[in-house]
Amino acid sequence: MMGHAEPARLIFAYAGVQYEDERVEKSAWPKTKPTTPHGQLPVLYVDGKPLSQSRVIERYLAKAFGLAGENDWEMAKMDELVACVEDFLIEIHPWFKEQDNAKKVEIFKKLIDSTIIPFITAFETILVTNGTGYFVGDKISFADLAIFHIFWFMNSKILPGALRKYPKLLEFVDKIAAIDTIKSWINSRPKTEA
Amino acid sequence: MMGHAEPARLIFAYAGVQYEDERVEKSAWPKTKPTTPHGQLPVLYVDGKPLSQSRVIERYLAKAFGLAGENDWEMAKMDELVACVEDFLIEIHPWFKEQDNAKKVEIFKKLIDSTIIPFITAFETILVTNGTGYFVGDKISFADLAIFHIFWFMNSKILPGALRKYPKLLEFVDKIAAIDTIKSWINSRPKTEA
Ligand SMILES: N[C@@H](CCC(=O)N[C@@H](CS)C(=O)NCC(=O)O)C(=O)O
Ligand SMILES: N[C@@H](CCC(=O)N[C@@H](CS)C(=O)NCC(=O)O)C(=O)O
Repeated sequence: MMGHAEPARLIFAYAGVQYEDERVEKSAWPKTKPTTPHGQLPVLYVDGKPLSQSRVIERYLAKAFGLAGENDWEMAKMDELVACVEDFLIEIHPWFKEQDNAKKVEIFKKLIDSTIIPFITAFETILVTNGTGYFVGDKISFADLAIFHIFWFMNSKILPGALRKYPKLLEFVDKIAAIDTIKSWINSRPKTEA
Repeated sequence: MMGHAEPARLIFAYAGVQYEDERVEKSAWPKTKPTTPHGQLPVLYVDGKPLSQSRVIERYLAKAFGLAGENDWEMAKMDELVACVEDFLIEIHPWFKEQDNAKKVEIFKKLIDSTIIPFITAFETILVTNGTGYFVGDKISFADLAIFHIFWFMNSKILPGALRKYPKLLEFVDKIAAIDTIKSWINSRPKTEA
């Protein structure tokens, strides 16, 4: 899967830092699970020491690779936007998880107006308001990469065309996807559905 | 409410830093909501600039007040534990929210073995393993204050006696509650249910 780890992989890709991208097959998971700190993936190992929780990993890498803003306030503003993405993902989780197609449509009908459109609209506005082509400050950050991933995923996997009416967001997604290091990661990464 | 803001208030209390603790009455919320960055509380205002997202606020304050560890790795390990608390709160949210008493009991019955006991057990183990009386390193941090709040809340509000079989956690909660600055905040704060 891309799963929870993909924004961290984008950070590695953008920073041009080598790492071992170990995927765990479903069949191997029962054996691997007890070796992780909290029974979940992803886990980042730094000199053998484990760190779990995807957003924590992203913040740690961002700090290490200079993608966390100029000061603690800027980092906090980035962090805030990622937390809003996380709230959104939690709200749409029932839709994502539902296997029954009729129920899935039912859930989606509720979410589209209550959650999905407000979320896309809010992020379009934030991008326009910041006015630099990035979400915080005037340089690319871990927030941009996390936000890129969710909208890329939305637009190309789960809601094709979702960004049609959001020109700045669409431009942003295309711009990040066109960065050499990101482009070559997207082209070379394992092709998975989620 | 104590709500999402309480761990940040505990950070202020522990650090001994003055701030304005503005609570918003339900009746005033429709007017206040559009003035917040993302339509939600809590919001921290620093020199008039807003920062929302409770965990982001905690991290920002912790950095500012020296409660975020000795280095980025230690901060990440603290951050990881708070993210686990957050995952737990999301999992038990359906129980917390349910108004119908019969359904509430039903939900609780499922959660107690799948989620609540594993969570308490895991945190008892982490505390015992770290061996310093704190969760990360050998000094109090924002993680300790966040973890204190959830277990204090559990033990005194929603599941009285929950920590009976977890001596180290109970000792930890009592120890933090007995710190002068924390004790006087707990005694003087508005008495609310949640
Ligand atoms: N809050 C965690 C959630 C991680 C999570 O849900 N991991 C899933 C896979 S994406 C997992 O490990 N599931 C297997 C299991 O719990 O046994 C994070 O952001 O890292
Ligand atoms: N992820 C956010 C959640 C904040 C949240 O759920 N806030 C609630 C109150 S505790 C709220 O503002 N609800 C009112 C509304 O959405 O209109 C955080 O941690 O700050």
